[in-house]
Amino acid sequence: MSSPYSRPLRGNVLLPACILLLFRLDQFRAEDGMEELATEKEAEESHRQDSVNLLTFILLLTLTILTIWLFKHRRVRFLHETGLAMIYGLLVGVILRYGIPSTSYHNKTPPSCSLKERPVPTLLLNVGNKFFEYTLKGEINSREIHNVEQNDMLRKVTFDPEVFFNILLPPIIFHAGYSLKKRHFFRNLGSILAYAFFGTAVSCFVIGNLMYGVVKLMQVAGQLMDKFYYTDCLFFGAIISATDPVTVLAIFNELHADVDLYALLFGESVLNDAVAIVLSSSIVAYQPTGENSHSFDAAAFFKSVGVFLGIFSGSFAMGAVTGVVTALVTKFTKLHCFPLLETALFFLMSWSTFLLAEACGFTGVVAVLFCGITQAHYTYNNLSSESTNRTKQLFEVLHFLAENFIFSYMGLALFTFQNHIFSPIFIVGAFLAIFIGRACNIYPLSFLLNLGRRHKIGWNFQHMMMFAGLRGAMAFALAIRDTATYARQMMFTTTLLIVFFTVWVFGGGTTPMLSWLHIRVGVDPDLDPQPTSDSFQVLQGDGLQSNGGSKTKQESAWLFRLWYSFDHNYLKPILTHSGPPLTSTLPGCCGPLARCLTSPQAYENQEQLRDADSDLILNDSDLTLTYGDTAITANGACGRRKKSNSEEALERELEAVDHEVISRGTRLVFPIEDHA
Amino acid sequence: MSSPYSRPLRGNVLLPACILLLFRLDQFRAEDGMEELATEKEAEESHRQDSVNLLTFILLLTLTILTIWLFKHRRVRFLHETGLAMIYGLLVGVILRYGIPSTSYHNKTPPSCSLKERPVPTLLLNVGNKFFEYTLKGEINSREIHNVEQNDMLRKVTFDPEVFFNILLPPIIFHAGYSLKKRHFFRNLGSILAYAFFGTAVSCFVIGNLMYGVVKLMQVAGQLMDKFYYTDCLFFGAIISATDPVTVLAIFNELHADVDLYALLFGESVLNDAVAIVLSSSIVAYQPTGENSHSFDAAAFFKSVGVFLGIFSGSFAMGAVTGVVTALVTKFTKLHCFPLLETALFFLMSWSTFLLAEACGFTGVVAVLFCGITQAHYTYNNLSSESTNRTKQLFEVLHFLAENFIFSYMGLALFTFQNHIFSPIFIVGAFLAIFIGRACNIYPLSFLLNLGRRHKIGWNFQHMMMFAGLRGAMAFALAIRDTATYARQMMFTTTLLIVFFTVWVFGGGTTPMLSWLHIRVGVDPDLDPQPTSDSFQVLQGDGLQSNGGSKTKQESAWLFRLWYSFDHNYLKPILTHSGPPLTSTLPGCCGPLARCLTSPQAYENQEQLRDADSDLILNDSDLTLTYGDTAITANGACGRRKKSNSEEALERELEAVDHEVISRGTRLVFPIEDHA
Repeated sequence: MSSPYSRPLRGNVLLPACILLLFRLDQFRAEDGMEELATEKEAEESHRQDSVNLLTFILLLTLTILTIWLFKHRRVRFLHETGLAMIYGLLVGVILRYGIPSTSYHNKTPPSCSLKERPVPTLLLNVGNKFFEYTLKGEINSREIHNVEQNDMLRKVTFDPEVFFNILLPPIIFHAGYSLKKRHFFRNLGSILAYAFFGTAVSCFVIGNLMYGVVKLMQVAGQLMDKFYYTDCLFFGAIISATDPVTVLAIFNELHADVDLYALLFGESVLNDAVAIVLSSSIVAYQPTGENSHSFDAAAFFKSVGVFLGIFSGSFAMGAVTGVVTALVTKFTKLHCFPLLETALFFLMSWSTFLLAEACGFTGVVAVLFCGITQAHYTYNNLSSESTNRTKQLFEVLHFLAENFIFSYMGLALFTFQNHIFSPIFIVGAFLAIFIGRACNIYPLSFLLNLGRRHKIGWNFQHMMMFAGLRGAMAFALAIRDTATYARQMMFTTTLLIVFFTVWVFGGGTTPMLSWLHIRVGVDPDLDPQPTSDSFQVLQGDGLQSNGGSKTKQESAWLFRLWYSFDHNYLKPILTHSGPPLTSTLPGCCGPLARCLTSPQAYENQEQLRDADSDLILNDSDLTLTYGDTAITANGACGRRKKSNSEEALERELEAVDHEVISRGTRLVFPIEDHA
Repeated sequence: MSSPYSRPLRGNVLLPACILLLFRLDQFRAEDGMEELATEKEAEESHRQDSVNLLTFILLLTLTILTIWLFKHRRVRFLHETGLAMIYGLLVGVILRYGIPSTSYHNKTPPSCSLKERPVPTLLLNVGNKFFEYTLKGEINSREIHNVEQNDMLRKVTFDPEVFFNILLPPIIFHAGYSLKKRHFFRNLGSILAYAFFGTAVSCFVIGNLMYGVVKLMQVAGQLMDKFYYTDCLFFGAIISATDPVTVLAIFNELHADVDLYALLFGESVLNDAVAIVLSSSIVAYQPTGENSHSFDAAAFFKSVGVFLGIFSGSFAMGAVTGVVTALVTKFTKLHCFPLLETALFFLMSWSTFLLAEACGFTGVVAVLFCGITQAHYTYNNLSSESTNRTKQLFEVLHFLAENFIFSYMGLALFTFQNHIFSPIFIVGAFLAIFIGRACNIYPLSFLLNLGRRHKIGWNFQHMMMFAGLRGAMAFALAIRDTATYARQMMFTTTLLIVFFTVWVFGGGTTPMLSWLHIRVGVDPDLDPQPTSDSFQVLQGDGLQSNGGSKTKQESAWLFRLWYSFDHNYLKPILTHSGPPLTSTLPGCCGPLARCLTSPQAYENQEQLRDADSDLILNDSDLTLTYGDTAITANGACGRRKKSNSEEALERELEAVDHEVISRGTRLVFPIEDHA
């Protein structure tokens, strides 16, 4: 059920994670003689080489940072920092590959020895009655044995792919969850979930099937050298469906583009990373029972679906639980008097989510995402102001470094990775497939969502979402995780090219595209967009009916109201210092418990209408107040009565939807007319 | 010349750094069959085990943090967080050792194969025409081969010692350098350097010789099982001379104890870590040429001294240069408009110091220390206010986590490390030796320093410094780095016990000791201590004559004046936005260059007497103004004339030293009397 990624990794990808740790080979020294000296020299040399390699990356990042500054300083927008990091990576890759004479110090083929048994994790080597301990690095393709001796430099700058998954992705993903702009995210939650789950699944299957056609074509054309199964195609569909519009969103942020479009894109890309990870694991887990049958097998299929649901819900639960535990700890201790302790605790708890999920066989990265969201929603409110800054900044820096590292590594990998398989047909096919896949995700789904949404997703927004389907760090990390077979190597090469192309072309084209599509910029994200001036409005709780289709608007709104009132009346008061006191929301019989769980601040905040941390509930001028009202009326213990005109406001808005005027591709909504 | 630590490390210490990285064994899977499944299961199990182990540490740290909070909340001072971390570590160690049944899944002895040649870094294993790549972990003692199979759990919680040196120490040491309270540090620089260099060397040789006596005694008593050379004793002296009064300083900080005593202790402990590292490498490098001669060899001795000087000055230069480069970059770019970029750059540059030093064969940790000091002295002034906060907080969090991790690991290691050698005679001898060594460091050196100091180091301060000679993270990291031989294993065990004892007993006894020694507390560190109320005053530039002895007070003060005026007039204006404009300090012929290097802010600050970042120069009410005056007078372009009474003030203070009244162990200085 767990970590289905532990697949064979051969040859040069299997390379020292220890480049990062610097202490790979300098731990041994034979006891005496010239051999010892030679070995020690080699070890020292290797240690030094590791330092030099890591230094190369650091200088690369430094250069990137300085150029980014120059670009920002001169307001250059056609190239984002990630694109820049890739270019520098490419340049350094070219230099390493062609510029530096092979400084191989292992100038002989490594000796081999044979065993009858299966490979073991630990092997002892007996050299003249001295024992040396060896650990397994992985299987190596017989045709690549000579690579082991050659190109030591190139081998060394190639990281262990697990570094990406276990070290670089978690801070990126956690930061994505933690920095989520809650309000706009939750307002569009339904659509985001639809795009992330159904859209990604559709995209995965469309791309998978198209690529299977391409592979068949290659077979006919005699361009396929090795096996390429249908499951491989689906796997490619899964990894390449993980969108990462980091460039686009950076520009959105800078230009203050429409916040709802931002929320849709950001939410989709964050969640679809999680979906893509779990989807690709499920596809790997899809192994029909028969011998070499890569045909359809219902049992295996349902097992895969089960794996998907199991891993996803398990990881979600892990993340949410750690978040909740952190919220409780920060609420019920006075840790906020010591911001350093608080920050350290926050950091450790968030990291432990990753480990906990991995230890239980779930996906750490997905757990970390939901942990980030929970931390932002609950724990964040309990932290001292210093800690909120500190945690945000800490994860921001980590995220920045990790992301730029991955992108510059991508550039480097194009030249230093030694098992590239460039297949023109496959590459062209993949480019076509991802556009078709993205189109099959966005347009039909938007159509369906628009059926249920009061505020439709306009054509310009759909085009922008289509355009913003960049591929980035996640697709790369998923592709590099396993490059053992011919098929996977071809996928890796293709993924790399797709990332380059989309980041440079689509990333660079964002600003012209925004103006071409008449998407408004310069919006203050903290102001609620006015219905009159906006081409786009989102109904809270719009998503649920898009999948069911059977529920009416009332029902789905009711479901979301239920969740919001539950969150606002029970979860927030229990987990944070905000929200209405539990004494007023829980039934009387729970009095002592309620008093015990409610923090003193809650009573103080009770009279304040707009407390900072419940902006999700209170800032949405009409609907959320409705929840507040209904929920509070039931208990009759809240001073918010004066705002009971919100129900009227809701009705007014519902009517307003009918008065749409389509003009120049943007729909203008005039809700005031009705009451004017 | 480089990394003399790459000595043989056998057995269980040689354990996966990859526990930290989580991706050790799950990278391989044979292609088919049951074997494959078994191997994959094992890999998965191992990955999970790694996660569980790391989770153990994180929960340990979490528990420590919560207890620390409780202690701080209740103002408990007898146990510092590091002591607490050790206790929890001990408890978990006991549980792991005795509580958990051996969950070894490698339930067979690892297979071995033989080679005629010397051991190689990479080995290929041929299993039925499939090749597997293995990397060397290290030599393993033949008597420990069975340990490989047993106690897998204990093996796994044991970290690769290089983790301490390459991952955990750098942030601790950098933070120490970066958080240095410049003013008090520089005021006492002479004494600090004397204690750190001569004191540590004295302590090392005293302890080394005493321990050699103890070893001889053990030999007579028949308690010595294996070789224990004189160089081993000296090595022990070096590693155990690294003081780490983290507990004491934390309490000083909390109680606002005397700032000069704080500066002396902090400065000494920071610099003596660097000295101890380099000293121990030099001792390792001391290898007489003759066969098995561990006797004195002049050539080898001078080579060792050369190694010491080479490594130390090289590392110092590396650190200073990276600091200066960072200062220049942050000064001449407008990077401060983008604090995130600035912080990332700062972080990368500081890290690159470590790598650069390692790549050049110097000591990364030492370089990082001096880089931290340089960054604090120059770069810090150029950063945006957000970045200054961010960098401080980032390193504070890293330092906190790393330190507590090391201390809880120490507790754990007492039970999980499997090659302890408890030798009662050695342990008792070592305890006596470190006290004698510390005494030989503090008392004679203080006496010598007091000859040259105007403001003597009182007996109470000397006793406190003696008492604050705790051993901590650095001694542990140096001891665990190499536990290959019998002698080193015994040293490691003894070091561990010394750390426990000193942290708990001396750390816990700090508060009573402070009041018993009548050391004043509740001092505002930002206020200059009044000569009248202080038992202790320090003359700037007091240190140089302590070693030379030939220089007069005038000369040494002149040397320091020279450095300060150079720093204030040239370095600060070139590297930061503060200080007088270069146009006024450089000769006229350098006009264009000076204009180019001087930042616009410098002109603005020119009239301000107290600019924030030159507090070192300006806050020291008398002497530093003198520098300012003399330097500026030469150019005749500064408006600080009105303060020219500072020379008088200096003279006044010099006279005041003679009027000391010893009362109740504290010397009171009455400088006003003379002029009253």
